[in-house]
Amino acid sequence: MAHHHPENDSKYLGLNVNKGITRPPSINPYLRQVRKDYRKIYTAQEYAEGILKGDIAVLSQAVTLVESSKPEHQVVAQAIIEKCLPASGKSIRVGITGVPGSGKSTSIDAFGMHLIEQGHRLAVLAIDPSSERSKGSILGDKTRMEKLSVDKNAFIRPSPSAGSLGGVARKTRETIILCEAAGFDYIFVETVGVGQSETAVHSMVDFFLLIQLAGTGDELQGIKRGIMEMADGIIINKADGDNIDKAKMAARHFKNALHLYPLSESGWSPEVLTYSGYYKIGIKEVWNMVHRFIDFVKESGYFDRKRNEQSKYWMYETINERLKNDFYRNPFIESLMPKLEADVLSARKSSFVAAKEALDAYYDQDN
Amino acid sequence: MAHHHPENDSKYLGLNVNKGITRPPSINPYLRQVRKDYRKIYTAQEYAEGILKGDIAVLSQAVTLVESSKPEHQVVAQAIIEKCLPASGKSIRVGITGVPGSGKSTSIDAFGMHLIEQGHRLAVLAIDPSSERSKGSILGDKTRMEKLSVDKNAFIRPSPSAGSLGGVARKTRETIILCEAAGFDYIFVETVGVGQSETAVHSMVDFFLLIQLAGTGDELQGIKRGIMEMADGIIINKADGDNIDKAKMAARHFKNALHLYPLSESGWSPEVLTYSGYYKIGIKEVWNMVHRFIDFVKESGYFDRKRNEQSKYWMYETINERLKNDFYRNPFIESLMPKLEADVLSARKSSFVAAKEALDAYYDQDN
Repeated sequence: MAHHHPENDSKYLGLNVNKGITRPPSINPYLRQVRKDYRKIYTAQEYAEGILKGDIAVLSQAVTLVESSKPEHQVVAQAIIEKCLPASGKSIRVGITGVPGSGKSTSIDAFGMHLIEQGHRLAVLAIDPSSERSKGSILGDKTRMEKLSVDKNAFIRPSPSAGSLGGVARKTRETIILCEAAGFDYIFVETVGVGQSETAVHSMVDFFLLIQLAGTGDELQGIKRGIMEMADGIIINKADGDNIDKAKMAARHFKNALHLYPLSESGWSPEVLTYSGYYKIGIKEVWNMVHRFIDFVKESGYFDRKRNEQSKYWMYETINERLKNDFYRNPFIESLMPKLEADVLSARKSSFVAAKEALDAYYDQDN
Repeated sequence: MAHHHPENDSKYLGLNVNKGITRPPSINPYLRQVRKDYRKIYTAQEYAEGILKGDIAVLSQAVTLVESSKPEHQVVAQAIIEKCLPASGKSIRVGITGVPGSGKSTSIDAFGMHLIEQGHRLAVLAIDPSSERSKGSILGDKTRMEKLSVDKNAFIRPSPSAGSLGGVARKTRETIILCEAAGFDYIFVETVGVGQSETAVHSMVDFFLLIQLAGTGDELQGIKRGIMEMADGIIINKADGDNIDKAKMAARHFKNALHLYPLSESGWSPEVLTYSGYYKIGIKEVWNMVHRFIDFVKESGYFDRKRNEQSKYWMYETINERLKNDFYRNPFIESLMPKLEADVLSARKSSFVAAKEALDAYYDQDN
């Protein structure tokens, strides 16, 4: 293939065969236009007003916009969130995790109804980046929360459908803001306890509750390492009938184990309780524990400090995710990385030289 | 201030008062030139040859180049590393952590001499990003390792001086490659057990050893949460004289606690042993444990799988660190972030809108 070299042509790019780096699209490319567009602003305003009045249908539609990956939906979603932000933050946010089989849905149903009976309103959200692949491994079937699913003071929302953990978590965190603005004063965020999602949940809740079962230790294999150390409370489910003694013994073991743990940043010593989600035994005690914790951290100032840290965390996390996505989804980098991985794995290149080559290629494309 | 609007001037940048984004300097800007420069290649070659012959003086100078932040040193250092890479990877890499006062130096001295007596050669490295500030809190004083410090089969190197954890860890990982090429078949990487460094160490070693003391539980407060879950072995020091019973009881407690932990990815159940670094009691048993582990994971294939994962990890980690550094050290972003943080903390902006503003500002500068 012959090359024409029009050196005086200002568009000549020399031997650079790579197309210029694609400037990544911003999340809301139409934001400025939309702000000038009265009708669409009014729509976001309508959404916000509906949410602030506690209209569940409007809230539900707004969450759909938050979950949408269409840029035009994201524009409206972000505008709604900004409007709801001043009315948010007033709930108690509780992360609930436990492996499949631990009785999570039944427990959430019992916990939720207990709170609703006390006059509260509850939103149950979920983070499960695998939910599409596994056809909704959690919260796919609302009816598993028998009572909550038909109570007007409960709002149940399955996990946003599959995507990167960062993306799914961002959507759930934004949904928390909308639910709080709609007057829900308790937010549960459920995860399945076997993946990476727990760190994300931990960074958006006030209290992290781990559901366990009594047993020979086998059932623990399902829980990912590190999760136990995040827990502010460990609760042993199915402490009923013949199982009470086993559950109490498990609780003692966990208590001893927690004793060996360093004190958490909050200064709170995680508690271990037994209960039965199915027979509604010990439910009140679980929530007394959560409230003792909330009182303790509000008193010490840790509550606000952690909320602030979480807001900052999500700002930086969003930036970092985007920087990485822009890099790794760059077509040239996408084609380069498998070769560099192979070079590193065969010790032809050090990790650092391979990294440098990728970075140089990325920035060079740009010039 | 009046603006001149020369619309036909191709250099006119509108109201954009920001200078174009500074293209970040590459790590080795002179790499290509140097490769053409026979004399300098020869120097890297000489270094590599000296290292491969096991010349400690040459190794020591090469590590100094690795630790240097001068670009011209980094060029030579990377060339040396590439040449040493094929001869690396043959050691057993052990991370050793424990709070100050746990007897880490005495233990390393005893462990190291035990290995040297078996005919091995040992390099002791360290990761302590705070070492400059704290005037060398670990390995600052080589003489604390009385015997190793005067043994020709040992190479002791203090932590690279202060810098980002990423930078310090990178230098230590590169030094491992050079030490292995120089024939050291055991590498210890020491950390102080109270910071973030343990994750970095964990991602460059085969076995992670946690030194603990018997006691009332208070001494555990110093160990950061999550470290216990990384340990492949927990060893209780100072199991001598009157302290033996206390140490054995502590070991039992740790064993019970570990029982409640989920199985580690390697399939290995972490072991708990007592020993005395000072009186050289139980040293052999500690190393029998390490070797049992190594046999176990070599048999299962986990050893190679983990090494490969680590190589890839460091490539991606280096890229991600650099992308973040380029962003956050950009002067315009540096001045913008405090304002955005304040907006997020006062709930004037959501975390995501603030992140988007920062990213748009960053990319816009570039155009």
